[in-house]
Amino acid sequence: MKIFRTVKEMQEFALRLKQEGRRIGLVPTMGALHEGHLTLMRAAKEATDFVIASVFVNPTQFGPNEDFDAYPRRFEEDCRKLESVGVDAVFHPEPDEMYPQGFCTYVNVEGDITHKLCGAQRPIHFRGVATVVTKLFNITQADEAFFGQKDAQQVVVVCRFVQDLNLPVHINMVPIVREESGLARSSRNVYLSPEEKTAALVLSRSLRLAKDAYEKGERNAAVLKALVTKEIEGEPLASIDYVDLFSFPALEAIETVDEKSLLALAVRIGKTRLIDNIILG
Amino acid sequence: MKIFRTVKEMQEFALRLKQEGRRIGLVPTMGALHEGHLTLMRAAKEATDFVIASVFVNPTQFGPNEDFDAYPRRFEEDCRKLESVGVDAVFHPEPDEMYPQGFCTYVNVEGDITHKLCGAQRPIHFRGVATVVTKLFNITQADEAFFGQKDAQQVVVVCRFVQDLNLPVHINMVPIVREESGLARSSRNVYLSPEEKTAALVLSRSLRLAKDAYEKGERNAAVLKALVTKEIEGEPLASIDYVDLFSFPALEAIETVDEKSLLALAVRIGKTRLIDNIILG
Repeated sequence: MKIFRTVKEMQEFALRLKQEGRRIGLVPTMGALHEGHLTLMRAAKEATDFVIASVFVNPTQFGPNEDFDAYPRRFEEDCRKLESVGVDAVFHPEPDEMYPQGFCTYVNVEGDITHKLCGAQRPIHFRGVATVVTKLFNITQADEAFFGQKDAQQVVVVCRFVQDLNLPVHINMVPIVREESGLARSSRNVYLSPEEKTAALVLSRSLRLAKDAYEKGERNAAVLKALVTKEIEGEPLASIDYVDLFSFPALEAIETVDEKSLLALAVRIGKTRLIDNIILG
Repeated sequence: MKIFRTVKEMQEFALRLKQEGRRIGLVPTMGALHEGHLTLMRAAKEATDFVIASVFVNPTQFGPNEDFDAYPRRFEEDCRKLESVGVDAVFHPEPDEMYPQGFCTYVNVEGDITHKLCGAQRPIHFRGVATVVTKLFNITQADEAFFGQKDAQQVVVVCRFVQDLNLPVHINMVPIVREESGLARSSRNVYLSPEEKTAALVLSRSLRLAKDAYEKGERNAAVLKALVTKEIEGEPLASIDYVDLFSFPALEAIETVDEKSLLALAVRIGKTRLIDNIILG
């Protein structure tokens, strides 16, 4: 497995692969890899000739009071995991390599989709995501890119700017991977104490309640959201950031679930902010 | 000469060319082509295997009170000129094709370089330029792109976002082409009455005065700017938008011309806003 740390070497290598007619798959990650990431890698292996994983904790998508410094970094362990699933190359730049002095260009998805859900509390988050993902697409020359459904809004934003900027890359969304308990896999789960980890089960449990109600015929968005909210409010360690239901992938407000919809939530368990979602319909 | 009007057809064609190992040159234009544009086309022919000219009056780089509607459009005549210099393909989309409903992603160069010179009076101009040029690079898969020095600030902005977003394209700046009178070629020259066209010679004349002074040893930026300003103020039909002198390509304020510098101006002749510049040092 090749490891690249500079933009120039990664891009020159990728351009040569393209000239040879290879089809490149990219899985952008911030490292601290878990089974969810490895599922993305396997999907990329199936669909392409050469899989590049990027491991980069991207400073521009963190707000000033967020967990950029605390975010777990364990590159050697990540490499062992990536090698075990047959990833061909890792791109692992330092922040200065991606954002050298004088850097000042941002890709900004200005529509409503970046102001809802996570965008409401994290105003610069999606600008940072769109910028770094555009850079990664250009550096790795990806034909196919793979993102997890856990960050469903991120997938919507990426699809939007890929279409708007005419980037020649196809976006694949891969379902959420959960622990046996139901907890969605997340690099941020390492922040949780054992007690908090039990409390965090309320996220997936509340979504399952809504899913059961939907499957029994409930279509009223307010009722479904209230079910989730009530369940989370019953957990003393949990504090709701948002519980919301939008059409998917347009992310438009809906009163009844008549089409494919995203039921998404962000909840703080102690100091740790966790997200989860399900797609209905 | 092939003519493409849709993004999909142009991009699929370009991706096939790339797979065949062809080197693609792009000359982005807004049409109403003159000798300046044709000089860019010839430079592209020399440097690449396949030259694409885009002809697109880009709405997102015009402010609400600017000349988007009035901007000259003469596509058939443009095609004859492009064919005469051996251009291989023309990309000529409608605005709806480039900005379909729901479009909301912009490439924004947030640094000082977009707020000076033309950016001071045209606040959204360079956001529109950066966005459309990024799209054109992705659609045409250009290896080399060619821009005229007349829009020197545009070249600086394009080089900035190409570097920041890691676009795999090389930017070439081609010198200004002038009429025998000294007037810089511009699609906007068609707006000028015969009387205004004579008045417009003050732009190049004032720059020549500064160049002569520079060549005789004058290095004081304020003195050089004052020479230009005084000359333009002597022309009754002319009204100065800006006369400025910055380091080039950094566009930083300078007091003395010790390094490569851009002496640039924008002047209204009647209702027509014209720009011109020289590079000193």
